[in-house]
Amino acid sequence: MAIADVQRVSEPALPNGLAQLTALTREDLQAVNKIILERMQSEVALIPQLAGHVIAAGGKRLRPMLTLSSARLCGYQGRRHMALAACVEFIHTATLLHDDVVDESHLRRGLETANSLWGNKPSVLVGDFLFSRAFQVMVQDGSLEVLKILSDASAIIAQGEVAQLITANDTETSEADYVGVISEKTAPLFEAACRIGAVVGERPSAEQEALGRYGRNFGIAFQLVDDVLDYSARQADLGKTVGDDFREGKITLPVVLAFARGSEEEQRFWRRCLEDLEQRDTDLDRALGLMDRHSALDDSLDRARAYGNDAIDSLKLFEDSPYRRAMIEVVEFCIERAY
Amino acid sequence: MAIADVQRVSEPALPNGLAQLTALTREDLQAVNKIILERMQSEVALIPQLAGHVIAAGGKRLRPMLTLSSARLCGYQGRRHMALAACVEFIHTATLLHDDVVDESHLRRGLETANSLWGNKPSVLVGDFLFSRAFQVMVQDGSLEVLKILSDASAIIAQGEVAQLITANDTETSEADYVGVISEKTAPLFEAACRIGAVVGERPSAEQEALGRYGRNFGIAFQLVDDVLDYSARQADLGKTVGDDFREGKITLPVVLAFARGSEEEQRFWRRCLEDLEQRDTDLDRALGLMDRHSALDDSLDRARAYGNDAIDSLKLFEDSPYRRAMIEVVEFCIERAY
Repeated sequence: MAIADVQRVSEPALPNGLAQLTALTREDLQAVNKIILERMQSEVALIPQLAGHVIAAGGKRLRPMLTLSSARLCGYQGRRHMALAACVEFIHTATLLHDDVVDESHLRRGLETANSLWGNKPSVLVGDFLFSRAFQVMVQDGSLEVLKILSDASAIIAQGEVAQLITANDTETSEADYVGVISEKTAPLFEAACRIGAVVGERPSAEQEALGRYGRNFGIAFQLVDDVLDYSARQADLGKTVGDDFREGKITLPVVLAFARGSEEEQRFWRRCLEDLEQRDTDLDRALGLMDRHSALDDSLDRARAYGNDAIDSLKLFEDSPYRRAMIEVVEFCIERAY
Repeated sequence: MAIADVQRVSEPALPNGLAQLTALTREDLQAVNKIILERMQSEVALIPQLAGHVIAAGGKRLRPMLTLSSARLCGYQGRRHMALAACVEFIHTATLLHDDVVDESHLRRGLETANSLWGNKPSVLVGDFLFSRAFQVMVQDGSLEVLKILSDASAIIAQGEVAQLITANDTETSEADYVGVISEKTAPLFEAACRIGAVVGERPSAEQEALGRYGRNFGIAFQLVDDVLDYSARQADLGKTVGDDFREGKITLPVVLAFARGSEEEQRFWRRCLEDLEQRDTDLDRALGLMDRHSALDDSLDRARAYGNDAIDSLKLFEDSPYRRAMIEVVEFCIERAY
């Protein structure tokens, strides 16, 4: 349902759709970065060293920016949202560290992963440290409501990761299965990051729900776009390599759609490449060709767009403001970047 | 300082020093086990399966028993201590799961480890799940003081684990270094488990401090005894194998003492076995001989006894009661079992 005063994803996004949000939260985000730097310290030098590598490479700070802008959207004028945005980033970093160990990844955003540089052991333990530190910072903030939001999110994320481990390399995964996995794996931290803004803003529960729905749907859209980019020519522009998910045998929505729509012979191809991980030099090109034939990337992006629209619709509860506009634009930007 | 009304470690312990504590906390512990079973459930079947394996193999439930008995010692009559004892066990289980991944262990208490049975990946993620679940249960309990105690403990434990990773296989480790590591790695959860009892009992901070000191010193004594048992003939009685730490190149107090007191030739032996991990069939026997010559095991036990005495002294603040007697006896039992 299109709401007249809510800009739609189908309208062209600003070229700098992330710049708007970045500009609005710049000062807050500088304070967050300072808190992150202070609170990741430890007398054990390897901890800030390793954590610093991941956090510095962490790029956009999208999740903490969502906490900051959600709080400001709710009219919050204090400083609590900064420490809590740092907690969100700590939890995100902890899950990245553990993810890279579990996925045996050696590159993240073009840089060597912590497990590749220092080994799995410190990655597991520094992840545990950052996770504990996030809870220490929340305790200092003193809100049981925030503690509930982030401990619930963490439990669901861990559960989603275990579920993904089980369905990994299973080409029979349905679209519903896959959306279920990312609803648990990626969406909860986006949702929590936004909800926290409403909590510190002390807004009624309808607004907390609306921001939660915005974050949840944005998280799903974000992950679907990420999955598409892994097979897209645009990927190369972003300094990444095409086909990482394919080489790891990861089942994502483009694969789910191409497999479901493929002939028996094509399905044998997908099974050999992704289940048995028997891959030849020309297989990635063939995979891209099959995805093109079955519109797997376009249709995945359409799904992302639908979730993005739902995210944007959720903001109709709030009056027009630079923060609301920026939060709409960032969703559009995340989807448009894949075209 | 010996206090007349406090039984000393040097007096003979009851043969069933753990049985007393077990008997006193039996009903509470049954409730804790029920909570553990309920709260480790998940729609992802692998989570309760893997967690159940570790928790069932977990043996004595020493840490949750300390929460239960500390609360009762403080005169607490409610039920909060049960859920919080379950949190302590969840955090303990999460650290065991991650420890076994980090140490690449294949056996724990004579059973195959979770990482050996299911692989490292689910062990890391189910550990994360249990850790998050512990915080969810604490949030439900609603005490920021408890959340502070356990998030602080978790951060220190993770930091201690990273520190141990760095000092691992370094034969130059001093006794102070080593006690420093176990003060961060093993003692904090014992300390936290006991402090929580005083918090739910709403006792003055002096009593919380006293129980914290009891737990901390008991934890150090417990770890030192564990280290000695790994080289002791008594080990075989306990269904374990002698020399696991030696084979893994772990530096524990018996090694620290034997190395410091050894000749240059002996120090070369220790370096070859524990730093270079070049071990021959007869090396463990030689290590045991060197420990015997330099009284390394006896002196390690004396250190454990000193920490145990400090733990027992901390209880002088409390009036005599079956719970206090059981908490004294369990310290004595843990030390005596190594003789």
